Amino acid sequence: MQGLARQNGPVPTTALIVLNQPSADAPPHSPGAPAFAGHDPASPLLSALDLGATRGDGIFETISVGNGRPQALEHHLRRFASSAAALELPAPDADAWRSAILAAIDSLDPAEESSVKTVLTRGIEGDGRPTGWVFATHSPDFSHVRTEGIRVVTLDRGYRHDVEQTSPWLLAGAKTLSYAVNRSVVREANRRGADEVIFVSSDGFVLEGPSSSVVFRVGDRLVTPGTGLGILDGTTQASIFRYAEGIGLETGFQLLTPDELRLADAVWLVSSVRLAAPVRELDGEPLAIDHDLTAGINRHLRALTE
Amino acid sequence: MQGLARQNGPVPTTALIVLNQPSADAPPHSPGAPAFAGHDPASPLLSALDLGATRGDGIFETISVGNGRPQALEHHLRRFASSAAALELPAPDADAWRSAILAAIDSLDPAEESSVKTVLTRGIEGDGRPTGWVFATHSPDFSHVRTEGIRVVTLDRGYRHDVEQTSPWLLAGAKTLSYAVNRSVVREANRRGADEVIFVSSDGFVLEGPSSSVVFRVGDRLVTPGTGLGILDGTTQASIFRYAEGIGLETGFQLLTPDELRLADAVWLVSSVRLAAPVRELDGEPLAIDHDLTAGINRHLRALTE
Repeated sequence: MQGLARQNGPVPTTALIVLNQPSADAPPHSPGAPAFAGHDPASPLLSALDLGATRGDGIFETISVGNGRPQALEHHLRRFASSAAALELPAPDADAWRSAILAAIDSLDPAEESSVKTVLTRGIEGDGRPTGWVFATHSPDFSHVRTEGIRVVTLDRGYRHDVEQTSPWLLAGAKTLSYAVNRSVVREANRRGADEVIFVSSDGFVLEGPSSSVVFRVGDRLVTPGTGLGILDGTTQASIFRYAEGIGLETGFQLLTPDELRLADAVWLVSSVRLAAPVRELDGEPLAIDHDLTAGINRHLRALTE
Repeated sequence: MQGLARQNGPVPTTALIVLNQPSADAPPHSPGAPAFAGHDPASPLLSALDLGATRGDGIFETISVGNGRPQALEHHLRRFASSAAALELPAPDADAWRSAILAAIDSLDPAEESSVKTVLTRGIEGDGRPTGWVFATHSPDFSHVRTEGIRVVTLDRGYRHDVEQTSPWLLAGAKTLSYAVNRSVVREANRRGADEVIFVSSDGFVLEGPSSSVVFRVGDRLVTPGTGLGILDGTTQASIFRYAEGIGLETGFQLLTPDELRLADAVWLVSSVRLAAPVRELDGEPLAIDHDLTAGINRHLRALTE
């Protein structure tokens, strides 16, 4: 048996690049070999002993690519490094990752919207060399959700809003491979007739989506719950705030409850690949969609280059 | 590049078996092929797109093997099925897994103590076929910790003790591959000069270790915090309770605080492979080791067969 890679069916337009030395603080996999190499996405890559696979012990980033240009690349690389530090992984070598990302994009057929995922795991237990790869793929068509919006339910994340300060060992705010809960909550949303989730802290504050940030508008202010709440430092949220400031909106941070969020003039879940998805229903109650601002934000995000 | 399996260094005595059809509810990987096949542990097995590796989206069990006999095998298989249900994974085919486990043990060199890990992932996104494998290996020598004991710190798990009832989407009590936090807390323990961790709920109750159950003795009662607390149904704890009842101890369940735990006559962290590790220090305070009972429990666990 050759392993469990995809063995049949249509092969999507993808590219896989494997790093020889994902961190300068750990030895390379093949001394003297090139910094990275292509790998057939249909062939097995990982050992059954890789701690990424057996313990979700690693980190990732997903970067949007518009017409061949990675967006917010440096912000993603900073967050990748910050997640590595939280997990005490060897620091990713930013130059090696940047080159591998650009190589993965280059080996994709051109497309209007693609994405690149970077993954760094602790590697095989006891081996001391982390595993790193970059996977690039064309994006699905999100135009429908970007205009028509999504139905969202709020779900308890179980943690208090201050858990990042009180209990840093829980890794809240790091983008780890341990995402079983982030997927489980979407199934719970589907059971409730919704598409997506906004996490709420156990003490009642709005946090983030399982793979997105929450942004809302109140009058001419664009607001997000902020940092230090055990949530990710949103790369797309940051890009949107720069756009908003450019068109004369104020931006800010605010700790708030779901009841307060329902009073906002408009709410979005924003993320690298889907971009700004307007929330049209929150816990079964309709919310108004700000079509003009949504279109402006998404036009801006798709035109971004860095 | 042939992928990132272990490429050099001494190969431990291990065996890897891959299941062709881990669940009867999903198609096989190779129609008509045998139920399972050996795979070189040094060769890559997993796709970089396997959701086990990219999202920690899967489950596992670790089963002790004494002189070739898997211990508490049926209890482990029941818990494996229960974890699969919590994650809405296709139900593992117990017969297929049992056969693969026995085959993995058979292909190991004989040893006094070994262990078998079973892993079931959701497979490649969109593929619809879960990935399943069994990895068997000789166990390290745990005789020192079984007699001399371990130093333990209590750490906040962030969740209330009733989270399994209030928020089942958090998967508390399922043995998932998303174990980054379970590894992070051991690093925090090491920073504090300890070896191991006992998780405490955010509302102050003793829960479990990151890969073990808590058992303690008060007089002639052997006690564990119990079920329904978002913790695992301990297979080793259950075996120990049967032994304890056989030698005339009472057994029971009790919700308690770390302060109450410190008043116990003896405390253990118990797990499938390390077995009963007596706690000799809790948050920096010495605890007495019950050497006779510890030795009796570990003799019993090592002699178990099913």
